[in-house]
Order: sequence, then structure tokens, then C-alpha cells
Amino acid sequence: MRRSIATVCLSGTLEDKLSAAAAAGFDGVEIFENDLLACPLSPEQVAERCAGLGLTVELYQPFRDFEAVPEELHLRNLRRAAHKFALARRLGAGTVLVCSSVAPEAVDDDALAAGQLRALADVAADHGVRVAYEALAWGKFVRTWERSADIVLRADHPALGLCLDSFHVLSRGGDIAGISGFPAEKLFFLQLADAPHLRMDVLQWSRHHRLFPGQGAFDLARFTSRVLAAGYPGPLSLEVFNDVFRQAPPDRAAVDAMRSLIVLEEGLGRRDPAAARRETAAVARRDPAAVARRGRAAPPPPAPAPEGFAFVELAVDAESGTEVARTLAATGFAHIGQHRSKPVQLWQQGDARVLLNATGTARAAIGAFAVETGDPERSGRRATALLAPALPRTRGAAEADLTSVAAPDGTAVFFCRTGAPDGWLGDFILSGTPGPARTGITAIDHLALSQPFDAFDEATLFYRSLFGLAPEHDAELAAPFGLVRSRAVTDPGRRLRLLLDGTLLRRGSWAPAVPDPQHVAFHTDDIFRTAQALRDRGAPLLNVPANYYHDLDARLAPAPALLAALREHNVFYDRDGDAEYFHLCTEILGSRVFFEIVQRSSGYTGYGTANAPVRMAAHRAAHTRNHTAATAGTRE
Amino acid sequence: MRRSIATVCLSGTLEDKLSAAAAAGFDGVEIFENDLLACPLSPEQVAERCAGLGLTVELYQPFRDFEAVPEELHLRNLRRAAHKFALARRLGAGTVLVCSSVAPEAVDDDALAAGQLRALADVAADHGVRVAYEALAWGKFVRTWERSADIVLRADHPALGLCLDSFHVLSRGGDIAGISGFPAEKLFFLQLADAPHLRMDVLQWSRHHRLFPGQGAFDLARFTSRVLAAGYPGPLSLEVFNDVFRQAPPDRAAVDAMRSLIVLEEGLGRRDPAAARRETAAVARRDPAAVARRGRAAPPPPAPAPEGFAFVELAVDAESGTEVARTLAATGFAHIGQHRSKPVQLWQQGDARVLLNATGTARAAIGAFAVETGDPERSGRRATALLAPALPRTRGAAEADLTSVAAPDGTAVFFCRTGAPDGWLGDFILSGTPGPARTGITAIDHLALSQPFDAFDEATLFYRSLFGLAPEHDAELAAPFGLVRSRAVTDPGRRLRLLLDGTLLRRGSWAPAVPDPQHVAFHTDDIFRTAQALRDRGAPLLNVPANYYHDLDARLAPAPALLAALREHNVFYDRDGDAEYFHLCTEILGSRVFFEIVQRSSGYTGYGTANAPVRMAAHRAAHTRNHTAATAGTRE
Repeated sequence: MRRSIATVCLSGTLEDKLSAAAAAGFDGVEIFENDLLACPLSPEQVAERCAGLGLTVELYQPFRDFEAVPEELHLRNLRRAAHKFALARRLGAGTVLVCSSVAPEAVDDDALAAGQLRALADVAADHGVRVAYEALAWGKFVRTWERSADIVLRADHPALGLCLDSFHVLSRGGDIAGISGFPAEKLFFLQLADAPHLRMDVLQWSRHHRLFPGQGAFDLARFTSRVLAAGYPGPLSLEVFNDVFRQAPPDRAAVDAMRSLIVLEEGLGRRDPAAARRETAAVARRDPAAVARRGRAAPPPPAPAPEGFAFVELAVDAESGTEVARTLAATGFAHIGQHRSKPVQLWQQGDARVLLNATGTARAAIGAFAVETGDPERSGRRATALLAPALPRTRGAAEADLTSVAAPDGTAVFFCRTGAPDGWLGDFILSGTPGPARTGITAIDHLALSQPFDAFDEATLFYRSLFGLAPEHDAELAAPFGLVRSRAVTDPGRRLRLLLDGTLLRRGSWAPAVPDPQHVAFHTDDIFRTAQALRDRGAPLLNVPANYYHDLDARLAPAPALLAALREHNVFYDRDGDAEYFHLCTEILGSRVFFEIVQRSSGYTGYGTANAPVRMAAHRAAHTRNHTAATAGTRE
Repeated sequence: MRRSIATVCLSGTLEDKLSAAAAAGFDGVEIFENDLLACPLSPEQVAERCAGLGLTVELYQPFRDFEAVPEELHLRNLRRAAHKFALARRLGAGTVLVCSSVAPEAVDDDALAAGQLRALADVAADHGVRVAYEALAWGKFVRTWERSADIVLRADHPALGLCLDSFHVLSRGGDIAGISGFPAEKLFFLQLADAPHLRMDVLQWSRHHRLFPGQGAFDLARFTSRVLAAGYPGPLSLEVFNDVFRQAPPDRAAVDAMRSLIVLEEGLGRRDPAAARRETAAVARRDPAAVARRGRAAPPPPAPAPEGFAFVELAVDAESGTEVARTLAATGFAHIGQHRSKPVQLWQQGDARVLLNATGTARAAIGAFAVETGDPERSGRRATALLAPALPRTRGAAEADLTSVAAPDGTAVFFCRTGAPDGWLGDFILSGTPGPARTGITAIDHLALSQPFDAFDEATLFYRSLFGLAPEHDAELAAPFGLVRSRAVTDPGRRLRLLLDGTLLRRGSWAPAVPDPQHVAFHTDDIFRTAQALRDRGAPLLNVPANYYHDLDARLAPAPALLAALREHNVFYDRDGDAEYFHLCTEILGSRVFFEIVQRSSGYTGYGTANAPVRMAAHRAAHTRNHTAATAGTRE
């Protein structure tokens, strides 16, 4: 299938947008009128620019509020349309989009609508273009794809066809069963957008909160497969109005958009391989070049099932490295190895492995993590096919060849098989063994990676698609310094849990002392034993306010002995039916990372997210206290 | 009236919020449960902190979903309530808020609700506190203030009363006529919030988009006067959930909040002076201290009618000063004076005066403007009473004593009477006269001041309240680099027009080359004469893309001669009925300011805002071209 993107999805001038779309590998673009109006290039120059970039102009969107109006207005509309069709022709756009009317003058008369659209199609045909008619979810009368389809059939003009937009259909919970029966020759265009389920006015929802496929809640694979089953021969074209994407760097947003289409097409193939083959054959009959293009970019190989974390790597400088190492020791980790060629230490307890990498200047942050997989090479190929930027490796002789890519938040992601003969552990000179689990930590439970404000949805799709994870536990919290949101992505076996969090709006000058903390959560089977051991070993544990436990008592009424133990050990608590979650935290290490110890019982699947605001305030208080103490110390 | 603010209005930890509220002069606070839970201070310590800051704890908000539930759940609820009443008592809060239930278990039975609330009030009375019951706009059954009032009367318990929240009443378009008849002794609490009219789910509207009084669309003076007419003796308490305020600097937000109450009280007095006197007397009978406190802060004197701009001052450095001076000359301004003691030049054409102030390092920006007023001293007193920060003056001997204050965006605002014997013009050594209007410019039409993302509503209230302006022409635009919004504030005589604009979301690394441009708009009675004169004099006029005029033709079909003239002179055009607007721009001068020349005909009141995206892209293109040219020049 050809892949197209509307210029409205991207930020910048028209020239910026075209460059970004081409660089991300799109075959075509929809040009929005406002982008053209503000552009110093003439329509012919825009067409030339597109051709030079290998982009076709799939669609032009110059006006709406056309049909079912009084005759005098209809004539004015035709005059304007003639202007715009001439312009579309100059742009090289063969199709012009006309949305169903929201004009106050429009009347509820499908025969009139069909007649006026037929007249419009006549003018379009004179200019060598065609009109794709689309039902807006908030159209004055025409709000469903079925009604717009009826009007198109009734108008019965070869230059008039249907445009289907997944948002307008799915936001209304529309019935899509009939789409596959619509005549292919009248299916002129397909626009795709995902969106979260929101309880709001559908127009505002559409104009501000659309997302790329796979980032929202719509079943776009099902929708798209219906349209393809009808024989739709055109491009899959993204039309996403999103307040954040409108101001995000366009090169990056275009790659995110392209990744969403690759993942969607993968879903289409998985959904019905036979249909995918039929579709390929159908496209081949009509457009052999499209099949050739698709052959160029092989679909990604399936994701090998993730088998947990091989390691997490903390980037440290000298000072924070000392602090983190001291805390790892106090948490019961053993320093069991040293990298052969780099200043990287290996620490381990149970199956939890932490690398301390002192090659950079970061004041303690999660720089990388490695996913344990049965087939690292295939994981790497999949990542590359999904446009993950490969990271350069500086590899010593005889060191393991680890594939790694950069996530949107800058984290390096490795794929490895720890037990393999040529595995990454061979890069380390081992000076000891993990020995017994000193404090009861058995593994890495999850990583919490804070995301930049404008990369949250991109990051979700990235991590999901690379490893075959699914999102869950979406939450929005009123935290002390502003709203934050979090979302987990997890494999079905819950061996790889990533918790993505970030601020809902970009923060300004007033921000917490520790912005965007990340954490590594370790698993224990006995939180109180581990808590006692950490305390005995002098780990810098976070104090939880007494008020928190007072509320816990009022709210969940845990048994008095349990409440006392929670309070004594500064353990946070959550309950979901019978399932329980216990978690405690260290203070912030260096500038932004902390450790968490968690125990899950009776199949608890969450992350105690409701406790996060209390934890954030406690981290702030600890930071202020430590900082004040340090300053006081300096003064003495 | 006592003035109170809910901690949820402000960002930070509880300690941050209390400090900010006290510093802004509030008498009391509502404490939100989550703020307390995350606080390391015990409830007694919080009470002590408040007392030390001169704050009473007016309300505590610990739970909801209480009433009209099955007996077993009712007993659990009472247990939890007892916990929380004890806590409220420790906090020193005499009133606890209980919102109408949204619990799935709640049933539609007002008798049961009243009975269970009576039982709750018994427990409350045992703990020495009282319960204020409030109808949430999205309550499961109780959604109107009338129904909550009926339940309170039916329960008939001295420790149970009503809480009225302006948002919950006005968001539903509730009938407020009956409020003034409600028994004063059962009116326990009044929460105030404004909001813009939004078409969205009322819960989301309430939780994310509330504003301080005067910043939204609700008639809070009318609402509040009804409540006061009933004899309500308690505080005016702000309860504003707003995503932006939640992360804005709390000291500043608290001042903004206090200003909103001062303005609201002024509106109450204006609405019905006799009622205000009666209310004062009623309060005096119950709380003489409150009347004394009110006496401390005198109400602001009325705003003298603004009579236009006395001057606008551009802050420049050496390089940008040369560029701006050259452009002023090319725009037909004459350099007619030099400040006696500072590096400030006076330029004038017609009644438009521009000062170039080279004392700073700004690369050309609007540093200050002066409002012409019949009573500068009173304007200054009003600004001070409205908590505008006074700016220090460095005044030479015999120089005019200009009062000035800082606006939220940092602009200095002066009040002056240019024609007065001791007026500010005396500070300048005049070397010439403005002479004839060389290019037809007669006055400053408006100033466009770009606002920081999180100061937009604050700035609106600031400018409105200082000068007695009203907002109009709210617009939200999809601009090339993201959404922007703009709003004008204008006096009834339209002599002072300020256009406030800003980004809808805070921008990140991908931003236009010229972020947040400001402009000074000059008025002409003949745009084409002025355009020709500017061109003859070599002013750096902005090129408008031909595509813009092509669309203008399709859209508005101006007469061919007019269209040709617009295109020839790069003039933007807007039409509103018969009223027309013509405007042209210079390129950006220095880093962020440009000049606009405008002509209004047939009473056009807007600002051609729809043309702004094209203008922004054109400014970006010009900047890129000039910058590239400069770089190319360097290379040679």
C-alpha cells in the first residue's frame, strides 16, 4: 500500500513538512490549504518540490460547507470551487476533499445534496480532478459514512466518490460491516487517525486529540481491513490533528507516523494473511509500482517473546557513581565484575543485574537497558524495520556484538541472550558470584522511564511495537508540581514491564528540585524482610509521611499489625480486590534516579500509581533536607 | 469579606502553598486531603504553621460518596468519616466538605440521603466540626443546588449545612434566583470558580479548566451577590482546578487569585452599593474583625477612562537600535527629542510616539508603554490596590514623576498626562516637531503583547482590571509552529486596544526562528498611500505570498482593482460584514518586534487575526532569507 500523510500532522512551514515526510519514507502527502496559503512557493513550485522529494500529492483540502444550500449560495460555492480545482490541478493533486456541510444555510435534503455535488463533480471533471466526499462526525445533517455513501451513489458521477476517515466513523461507534460491500471504484480516499476514548465534544476531540494508529483506543486494523476488502486501491493516509504534534519536531513526528503505518500493516497481515495476499494481488493488478515499493521495505519480522531484563545500565559520573555503588551495596547487590575495556561495573543480586557506566557525565540516570530474548538478531532486525535508530557500537576485540537502538527518550535498548556462549557476560572479568540473595531481591520487576512531554505517545508505540507489548494501567495524577500521566507496557507473560511516565504539559521555571525522576524497581518475595535488611545495611530509604498511613487506615483499614509494619518500614501499599502491592523507595541518587523494592501478591498487576504524588513530595522533602544539610555543612 | 483559597489552586507542597497564600494576603485556606497526605508535618503542625502565617483553616475536603448507600456501606463510611473528623479537628478546620455521591452503590432516595447525612452530622458534632454538603454538577442523583438544599433542610441538623460552588451551579445554567431565600444559618460555605464556556464533559471541564473569577465567562458578581443577599457570613473561597495553575509558580498564582477577588468585590459593590453596605453591617454584627481586616485594604479607586497611548517604548541595544531607528525614519517618524539624563530617543508622527531606550541589552522588544489618562495618580493607586508590582524609578532632578508598574509579562506600564505642565515630555530636550504626517500615520492603533504560556489568563485580568477594559475577539489559531491564541482587551471608547497572544502549550526545542513576536500597530486613514510612502522610503516591508491573494479572491472576491492593490502592496485584508481591515507589516526588527500599519473602515473592531498564520510563516521565511544572506555575506 502507498503511505501518505497530511501536512496538518506535522509542525512547521510547508517546506519543512514536505522534507520531513519524504525523509521518513512516505510516498505521498495531503496538502492542507493553510499550509499552501502561507507558502511563498507557487503551486507549480510545490508540485515540483514534491516530485523532487519522491512525493505524490494525494489530496488537497481547500474548502467545505458546499452541499445542500440555497441556489444563490450554491453558485457562489461553485465559483470558489472552480478556483480551487484549478489550484489543485496546478498542485498536481488529482483528488479534492469536500467534507459534509456544517453551514447554517444547509438544509436536510439528500437529493439536493446529491444534485449539488453532481454539479460540483462536473466542474471538477472539467479541471481534471475528482471530488472525495466525507461525512464529518459533527456534520449538520450528514454525519455517518452510510449517509455520505448514499449521497455519492445517488449523485452517480464518475468524478465523485467517497472519502472514509476512521475518526469520523469510529468516534461515533459507527457500524463498519457494510464498508466492504461499497463499490471500489467509488472509494476515492482513506484517512486514518487513532484517538483515545474521551468524553468530550466530538469536534474538539477530533481537532485536538487525534493520534497516529496504534497510539489510541480505536481498532484500526479491523476498520482498515474492511476498506481494503472493498477493493480500495488508494493510499493509507494519516490525518491527525493533535495539539502536541503540531508543535513537535516534524522530522521525528514523521518517523513516528511512518512507524504507526508499518505496525498497522503488520496488524492487517496478522489479522487475515489470506486477505493480505489478495490485497497485494489486487494492488499489483492496478499498480505494480506500489508492490515494488512495498517489496523494498520488508515487513518487520515478528517480535521474539521478551524474557525479562538482562540488565539495566545506569550512567554515572565519579560522584554519583560512588553514591549509587554505595546504595547498591546497601541494597544487597554484589559487585561481581568489571568490563574488559570500559569503566563499567557489573553488580548483581538474584537475577537482577545493574551496570554502572562511568564513561559519560550523567549524574546518575538510566542510560540503557537490555531485553533478554531468544533471538537477539531478529529483535534487532525488527527494531530496524520499525525505524528505531541504530546506535554505533565501540566494541573491543572478542567482545559481544550487542545490537542496540535509541528509544525516543534517548535510552539505549539492547537485545541479548545472557546464557549464550558468546553472550555479553563474557565482556566482563568476573571477580565473584552473586551469591545468596542477601536482602531477598530476586529480579528487576520493572523500569520506570520518564518521557519528555511531547514524546509520550511516540514512546508508547515505540516500546510496544519493538517487543510486542500491550499498554495497560493508564493513569493521570494530580501530583504536587502539576499533572502527570503514566502508562505501563507489558508482554502477555509479564516478564518485561516498562512504566512510562511524564508531565501532561511541559513544565516551566517552577518545577520540582528533581524533575522527571526515573526508577529501577527490584522484586522481592518478602518486603518486610528486605526492608529490614536494607535498613540494617544503611540504605538511604525514603521517609513516608505519617499522614499517609493515617489515611490508609481510614481508607483501606488494613490489619493493625500490617499497618504498623508498613509505617515502621516506610512501605507504600495498594490493594486491588484481594491482590496487594507493597513498595518502598530509596531517596534520589545523583540527579534523577532512585531504586524501588516491590512485592506483588495474589496477582497484583499495577504499580501503586495512586501513591506516586505522596512519593514525589517525599522525594522533594528529602532533597530539600539533604541539600540544606549539605549547604549547612559547607557553611561550618 | 474574608478571602480564602483552596490549596488545590496552587502548585507545590502544602508548605509552598500556605506560604504563597499568606504572602498574597489571604485570610484562610481550604486544605485538600492529598496535600496533607503528602506533607511531613502532623495536622497539629500544619495548624500551627497556618496560625503563624495568619491563615485560618476554613475547610477540609477528605472524602465523598457518602450518602444514600446500603446500610453496611453506610457504617463503613461512618467509620471513615470519624477518622477524618478527628483529623479535621486536629487541623483546626471547623468545616468538612462532603460532595454529593457519584458512587455506583448510591440510590435515588433523598429521604435516605438526608437520614444518613443526619447521622454523619451527629458524628461531626461529636468531633466539634460541621459538614457542608455540596451538589456536584455530575453527581449521580444530586446535581443541582436546589436538591442539595432540600436534603440539607430535610436532614435538619445544626451541624449540617450547604456548600455552594459557583462552578457546579453555573456550569449547568442553574437558576440562582432562589439562593437569596435560603436560611443563612445553613449556608456553611461558598466556593468560587470561573470558567470559559466549553463544549465538553462537565467533570473534565471542572477538573481541568476552571479559572479565577473574572478570567472566564461566568457572571460571578451576580451569583455571589445572591449568596450574600441570603446573609452568608463566611469567606469567599476560591476553588480552581486548572492544569496550568497546578504547575505555575504558586506565589504568582496566589497574587493573581487575590486580584480576582478584589475585582469581584469591586463588582459586587458596583452592582448594588446599598447591598454592599447592608452586607458590611451584617458582617460587622457577626465578625467585627472581618470588617477591620477589610478596612486595612482599601478598595481600589475606579479606573480613570484611558485616553489612548501616550507612548510605546522599545528596549534596544546598539545594533537593534540602529535598525529600529532606520525603520522608524523609513516609516515617516521624526526623531524629535532626546531624554535629559538617559539614552532614550523620542520619535513621533501624528500622535504616535515611540521611545527608543538603549539602557538595556534587549535586541528590540516592547519594554514599556504609557497610558494617557486624566488622573495618572489615581491610575497608579488603582494599580497598587490591584497588587501590581510598582517599579523603582531612577528619576533625574526636575524630571516627571511617572508611576509605573510591572505587568505579568514583564512589560512596564506607565500612567501619564502628556499635556500636563509637569508632563513627561518635559524630560526630553526637543530638537524638532513631529511636523506633517509624512506617511499618513496618525496614532498607535494597538499593541500586541505576547504572553508566556502560563500567564495568559493572569495577564488578561491584569490589563482588564487596571484600566477597566473588556475582553473581545478571542481566537485560537492553527499557526505554523503550533496552536496560538489571542484575545483583545479594549475600553468602551476603543482608545486603548491591547492584543494579547501566546502559545496554547509551552513550546519546546522545535520553535520558530522568531518566537513570540510582539508588534506596535500604527493607524492610517489611507493604507495604500502609507504603503506607497513606506516603500518609497525603503521600509523593510514583509512580503505576502501570492497564494494568500489567490485564496482571498476565491473566498471574499474583492473588486479586481482592490485585489491588485492589496497584492501590489503586500497588504493583508479582512472583512466583517461591511467593515474592512487593511494591514501590512514590516519584517522583524532585532529579535522579536515588528511594526504594523492598519486601516479600519466602517467600524471594523477586530485585528485580522485569521491572517496571523500566513504572517508568521512570512516572517519566518524573511528571517531565514535574511539570515542566510547574512551568513552568505560572511562567507565571502
